[in-house]
Amino acid sequence: MSRPPRLPAKQDFPVHQIRRYLEPGPIVLVSSAHKKQRNIMTMGWHTVMEFAPSLLGCIIAGGNHSFELIRKSRECVINLPTVELIDQVVGIGNCSGAEVDKFERFGLTPLPAAEVGAPLVGECHANFECRLHDGKLIGKYNYFIFEVVKAHVARTPKNPKTVHYKGNGEFMVAGEVISRRSGFRSEYL
Amino acid sequence: MSRPPRLPAKQDFPVHQIRRYLEPGPIVLVSSAHKKQRNIMTMGWHTVMEFAPSLLGCIIAGGNHSFELIRKSRECVINLPTVELIDQVVGIGNCSGAEVDKFERFGLTPLPAAEVGAPLVGECHANFECRLHDGKLIGKYNYFIFEVVKAHVARTPKNPKTVHYKGNGEFMVAGEVISRRSGFRSEYL
Repeated sequence: MSRPPRLPAKQDFPVHQIRRYLEPGPIVLVSSAHKKQRNIMTMGWHTVMEFAPSLLGCIIAGGNHSFELIRKSRECVINLPTVELIDQVVGIGNCSGAEVDKFERFGLTPLPAAEVGAPLVGECHANFECRLHDGKLIGKYNYFIFEVVKAHVARTPKNPKTVHYKGNGEFMVAGEVISRRSGFRSEYL
Repeated sequence: MSRPPRLPAKQDFPVHQIRRYLEPGPIVLVSSAHKKQRNIMTMGWHTVMEFAPSLLGCIIAGGNHSFELIRKSRECVINLPTVELIDQVVGIGNCSGAEVDKFERFGLTPLPAAEVGAPLVGECHANFECRLHDGKLIGKYNYFIFEVVKAHVARTPKNPKTVHYKGNGEFMVAGEVISRRSGFRSEYL
């Protein structure tokens, strides 16, 4: 396993623009805390739902150790790893927080969040602090609707390479950015 | 605008494995039909929700011409375009089906679906026929939960390049696939 990158310097980012990072569908790390427990899980099933308030929907299966931490604390942080963290992403997704402290196991740095009790994963390119907005579909679908209440994004690189899970142990890497701004109606940008 | 690719030959694909194509978060084209109207829209806000039944959640904003076609017919097809179709994707997202027939305007081929009334977009790499599974969140969030009832996937290429919308007229391209199968617990593959 390669060493995680150093902690990137970050700046505040407008919460209504987080689609810039999440709409492309990357695998993310979800960090949580409740009472004396904390955990990190990988997540690939998520979608942007609204600009303002900044809403995200995601599936957190009941079998995950994080499920109860998030359901009870009603908070989490969604962290965006880049391709340099792929080994940590895979490792985190293949062990249980009931058995290990994943920050320690994977050499990741918990940093205090501004608005929620869950820690940020310092090594990630971006961190989105979330508060539960609507829990009505948790019982039927394990579907959580969060509001992003604070966003932190690394200053560089401008176009980080992210990883996108396909199932079966395979990831697509996205990084090359192409612009088609000239083809858009201005109100749609 | 470049010409769309020819119609790829497709085969049936197991509906419980559509995460292989949609979990990475590509922009998709949603085709629909109701009475004598048909339409295509672009969509970037979607997530896999369950393997079996094969569920997808997505936001279709009320302002879209497709909204009523899909709400009333309770069906649609989610089509996966590759990077060769990016100009059509942008064009489709920047005009209204209330004014133009987008199949004609963009030279795309409507093909009959097996299970639903909406047409497949023939030029796309994959087509997922969907039936509305749960409409309870349409009123509050414009959030549709569909069941994929039939899937068609092109035989080649094995790893198509897909486009992932970032907002602001910019897309990420994903194509390179890296495997970390050896790092997965077998029950998680």
